[in-house]
Amino acid sequence: MAGGLTAAILAVGSELLTAHKTDTNSLYISEVLNDLGIAVAFKTIVGDRRDELAAQVAHALARHEVLILCGGLGPTDDDLTREVVAAHLGLPLDEDPAIVEAMEQRFAARGWKMPAINRRQAQVPRGAVVLGNPHGTAPGLWLERGAHAIALLPGPPREMKAMMGGDVRRLLAGRAGSVRLRRRLLRIAGKGESMVDELVAPVYSQWLKQSPPIETTILAGLGQVELHLVTQSADAASADAALHRAVSEIEGVLGPDLISTDGTVLEAVVGELLRQRGWWVAFAESCTGGLATSRMTDVAGSSDYVERSIVAYSNRAKTELLGVSPALLAEHGAVSEPVALAMAAGIRQRAGVNIGIGITGIAGPGGGTEQKPVGTVCVAIDGGEATTVRTFRFPGSRDMVKQMSANWAIDMLRRYLLKG
Amino acid sequence: MAGGLTAAILAVGSELLTAHKTDTNSLYISEVLNDLGIAVAFKTIVGDRRDELAAQVAHALARHEVLILCGGLGPTDDDLTREVVAAHLGLPLDEDPAIVEAMEQRFAARGWKMPAINRRQAQVPRGAVVLGNPHGTAPGLWLERGAHAIALLPGPPREMKAMMGGDVRRLLAGRAGSVRLRRRLLRIAGKGESMVDELVAPVYSQWLKQSPPIETTILAGLGQVELHLVTQSADAASADAALHRAVSEIEGVLGPDLISTDGTVLEAVVGELLRQRGWWVAFAESCTGGLATSRMTDVAGSSDYVERSIVAYSNRAKTELLGVSPALLAEHGAVSEPVALAMAAGIRQRAGVNIGIGITGIAGPGGGTEQKPVGTVCVAIDGGEATTVRTFRFPGSRDMVKQMSANWAIDMLRRYLLKG
Repeated sequence: MAGGLTAAILAVGSELLTAHKTDTNSLYISEVLNDLGIAVAFKTIVGDRRDELAAQVAHALARHEVLILCGGLGPTDDDLTREVVAAHLGLPLDEDPAIVEAMEQRFAARGWKMPAINRRQAQVPRGAVVLGNPHGTAPGLWLERGAHAIALLPGPPREMKAMMGGDVRRLLAGRAGSVRLRRRLLRIAGKGESMVDELVAPVYSQWLKQSPPIETTILAGLGQVELHLVTQSADAASADAALHRAVSEIEGVLGPDLISTDGTVLEAVVGELLRQRGWWVAFAESCTGGLATSRMTDVAGSSDYVERSIVAYSNRAKTELLGVSPALLAEHGAVSEPVALAMAAGIRQRAGVNIGIGITGIAGPGGGTEQKPVGTVCVAIDGGEATTVRTFRFPGSRDMVKQMSANWAIDMLRRYLLKG
Repeated sequence: MAGGLTAAILAVGSELLTAHKTDTNSLYISEVLNDLGIAVAFKTIVGDRRDELAAQVAHALARHEVLILCGGLGPTDDDLTREVVAAHLGLPLDEDPAIVEAMEQRFAARGWKMPAINRRQAQVPRGAVVLGNPHGTAPGLWLERGAHAIALLPGPPREMKAMMGGDVRRLLAGRAGSVRLRRRLLRIAGKGESMVDELVAPVYSQWLKQSPPIETTILAGLGQVELHLVTQSADAASADAALHRAVSEIEGVLGPDLISTDGTVLEAVVGELLRQRGWWVAFAESCTGGLATSRMTDVAGSSDYVERSIVAYSNRAKTELLGVSPALLAEHGAVSEPVALAMAAGIRQRAGVNIGIGITGIAGPGGGTEQKPVGTVCVAIDGGEATTVRTFRFPGSRDMVKQMSANWAIDMLRRYLLKG
């Protein structure tokens, strides 16, 4: 992100440090900053403690031009943001009579008298711009000191968003110049994180040397890998062109392992392939317990191509509902490729759809054997003319095995559709 | 927490700084630290940049005894945590042959050869304790230097939790004092957050005045509310007794809306009720697309009471597989109480189980009408002798409607079982 402005975000409030709260304000703040081409270097949550907050403010301003603080502007003793920032910059605090009057009116409109402690909220570091708060009592503050721009925003999301998306955005845009961030999210299936990296590292390592440079981040999920490409440029067209070239190179390297190049999730990609063909699918699930179908139907409009699904947990259900013969179950066991194929064929024929998918496995933690340990899962696709079947050995917990199985089943369907 | 150890948490990963990701690992880490009486002073998210990460490590260790880092232990070039921490402490990195061997075996078990870059994950700062990772390739690391204790944990939540809750907790306990947090987690269904608060506030407001005081946090989820009770004492017995009394008071106020008082999840509570009776259930799902069954089968051993499930997305499937008459569908529409009841009865009879559950609704975003807007969902329980049916109007996105529907269906089953 060489050349552009960099920013730090400080969320202030002891409640944000408990095990049950998470800071979401910084997501919106990041979005606005990124839109302006300002990279977020770090974001920190700090409690209502003067020394800790002061140390964080000093750390942030020593390294970055932009500092956005959120929270700690309330009227009580533990609201310290105004004082700490003013002290760090060596600015005195003055009471702003216009703020006092606006707050008094706000209280009066509800038939209340303003408590005396609210006067704290009218304290303004000398030279600061006061940012109006249509949704609450605490005004925001904007300070510029040399290369630094500092915004103090209230913690309630509605109040913060109105200011960050309005006044602060406008004030920052004046400093940020014309550089903007552009990003692409590529989704990959069928390979682990390190395998993907081995393949794409020779490609993306070149991108850092070109102009504009592209930064790459690899992220592993359950059965999927994400590749994030980010570039920054004053010229949106050349940035987009650079990203387009980069994506083409990755396509060349990864081929059909690439699920999408615009962030589209696997189940939506598969849904679109089915919709293009006017095809219907039906699932016969055992160890996934309905998860594969549930994921397919997370996509709006999936009733256009998902006809039905049967969760056949018991052998009896596999026989009654899918026509899997008891002899086959006895010979190969419920977790076997022949049974997965029979489940796929059974659901396809009985539902009268184009493609049937069969999933059978051992999610654990019990039920494993030496030959078929926990995590053994067979997935079959039956499209009438062609069938395909695979056996997996997934690591991890019951939940992981379910997630990985559903993911691979949907990805096998994607690959089947790409070939057909 | 005066006098006790203080800690900083650093989550490492550029993807965590984007506008669409949030760090949740720090919540679990905070919980473990708080349990041990270690206060969290701040938590920071920093990208995969050497200079920023190094500055954060220096800042944290200059102020606090405990530093927990999470992420950046992967095999790729942008995984910098090991190197940065080792450099800060002036420790050389040595390759640990035991780690290399364990990783090679892990790859071999899946029929793959370990890519060369994974050797990076075997680099260990001299003197560090290696923490085993049953769920992934990256081992964790534990370093003690004078007053400082530093843990390096992998980013994937499953891997992090196993280490933080196991080895790191044990190692930290040796350094922390004898004050411990005790907590109880109560799960509540059928009421919103503010309704629960209105009922229980008169009760829990008294707890702050007693000794040891109990702090209460209310958290809203999709269709559920969590009540966290926390107390802190060097005397575990009196803390537990105080929590026990508090839970009894809440039971008196909330009655059957209380799912569990020990954190047990809804689907496990329902599973236990079914197991006690030796009963079987089967689901007939439409708008939830298999999600209710998938959630029921998240519990190990659920094959003892979940017999089968049918996802009947189309009207044809509702008729063929569940015996819902076309006349009924035409008269009332697919999303109606009569159809939900017919689905429940159909699956119960055809599966030959004790209880059938029918779920039909409009998950959206399309498909709503003025009379039956998006979010309209009918759930029916048929136990043969008695039936129950309800119509809901859920707010929110498709995913939220699915989640709320599955949750309410399973909770209706719980209430049905409590009565029977």
